Amino acid sequence: MERREDRVAFQGERGAYSEIAARTFFRRSIQLLPSETFDVVFSKVESRAADFGVVPIENSLAGSIHQNYDLLLRHQLTIIGELNVRVSHNLIVHEGITLSGIRRIFSHPQALMQCQKNMAKLKGVQIIPAYDTAGSVKKIKEEGILDGGAIASELAARIYRMKILKKGIEDNPENYTRFLILARTKEIPVKANKTSIVYSVRNLPGALFRSLSVFALRDIDLYKIESRPLHGKPWEYFFYVDFAGKLDNPNCGNALRHLSEMATFLKILGSYLRDTELSERR
Amino acid sequence: MERREDRVAFQGERGAYSEIAARTFFRRSIQLLPSETFDVVFSKVESRAADFGVVPIENSLAGSIHQNYDLLLRHQLTIIGELNVRVSHNLIVHEGITLSGIRRIFSHPQALMQCQKNMAKLKGVQIIPAYDTAGSVKKIKEEGILDGGAIASELAARIYRMKILKKGIEDNPENYTRFLILARTKEIPVKANKTSIVYSVRNLPGALFRSLSVFALRDIDLYKIESRPLHGKPWEYFFYVDFAGKLDNPNCGNALRHLSEMATFLKILGSYLRDTELSERR
Repeated sequence: MERREDRVAFQGERGAYSEIAARTFFRRSIQLLPSETFDVVFSKVESRAADFGVVPIENSLAGSIHQNYDLLLRHQLTIIGELNVRVSHNLIVHEGITLSGIRRIFSHPQALMQCQKNMAKLKGVQIIPAYDTAGSVKKIKEEGILDGGAIASELAARIYRMKILKKGIEDNPENYTRFLILARTKEIPVKANKTSIVYSVRNLPGALFRSLSVFALRDIDLYKIESRPLHGKPWEYFFYVDFAGKLDNPNCGNALRHLSEMATFLKILGSYLRDTELSERR
Repeated sequence: MERREDRVAFQGERGAYSEIAARTFFRRSIQLLPSETFDVVFSKVESRAADFGVVPIENSLAGSIHQNYDLLLRHQLTIIGELNVRVSHNLIVHEGITLSGIRRIFSHPQALMQCQKNMAKLKGVQIIPAYDTAGSVKKIKEEGILDGGAIASELAARIYRMKILKKGIEDNPENYTRFLILARTKEIPVKANKTSIVYSVRNLPGALFRSLSVFALRDIDLYKIESRPLHGKPWEYFFYVDFAGKLDNPNCGNALRHLSEMATFLKILGSYLRDTELSERR
């Protein structure tokens, strides 16, 4: 019997940067499930409407995508992988259109911001925020907008059969987004070397420092620490920590047991293979 | 000679929550300078077009306002105070309008999100995101929009002489925003008991933990730690730390000298009186 393709949910229209992450991570034929919101991506995986979800968690210029940190806390999914994707924006138009014919540029506010300096060179062009990068390409395609361009990925141009007028128009080339791959499984990938958790501690002097000591005392390297407000308790926080190591490694197990002695809440988000690459992927 | 009123810049239209923070903090007659963006607030103070700036830095439900963390790093201003403001949203309409006459509700996306559950009870009403809460009241007032309501502060209703149809419509009452008061001075307020800094450390195992030890070793309590991406160096961070104490206190001085031994960058943002109140202010 032929195994059916895995169904992978991501936020945005076909051609979204999340789709690039999904295709690159799975490196096999998958069924793509474009979804309206991040919330819907989590729900599809949880309800078995999808096998995997792919969501952005952090951008090297804009910072963390907090909504997805909050969703990781609320939903019962496991992080099984991560992938860094170089974000390279392109000005996409209908075939036959040149720069002088563009009066309007559509894209997601974040993408527009990341191309601000390059956009400023175009005189008399209106910048129009849209809900999605790839969705903007779809829009100018479907609505036959001939005096408009969209800022999106190369993949979006290919999918909607549109022309790339200008390539790599982002102001800062050090523009990477880190994506997480989510699943329902609790299995730990064999090659996992990075673990993510979320916890809270009593709001006492030195509590955060003491909680971090469980890693320092065991020479466990921290990759990232992120705080998010604890709803209903103003100025108290959940801490999201990414550290070196695998859940079934004794040193990690000891650190987490030690942490649980002082944590008022502790949730394991997953162990997975760290992506150390910062190379271009299209 | 009569002293002229201090000029206080804030983001948003008259009636913004930042205006409530400014009025409450200064408790004297001030000249209000509504400003288009946070960037403009910082620039007005820096260029002496304003004496003080008031910006939100953190909301107890939504989290940090990262843009203002980034602006604190880029501009040469000092934090001279902070203030917690309870965010209480109201549904504001023209005189004579009742719930059944409302077809559209305008407000800032953040405010719309915070009233989501209460809004869902209104059937057949279109939710329209706008750039500003108080600005939405101004809009329905000036454009004579009779079938629309705006979500904003009580102060906004008073300023634009509009009616509050429903009071306190936020879903979660534990909704506070912490505001910072900014100035050009380097003077430390006499009653200061809280200090804010931003620093970076080499990207080495244990570096964050060691940097926090300079506070723990001296029994200095940390109130908050926040990380922001270091542009141009993917996955490296600036750390914003708020801690107990005053810059001219020897214990704090020693901690900062110790920190400077290991920091690759260190900037003092200011010492000021901590606001421990979470009471309602209108």
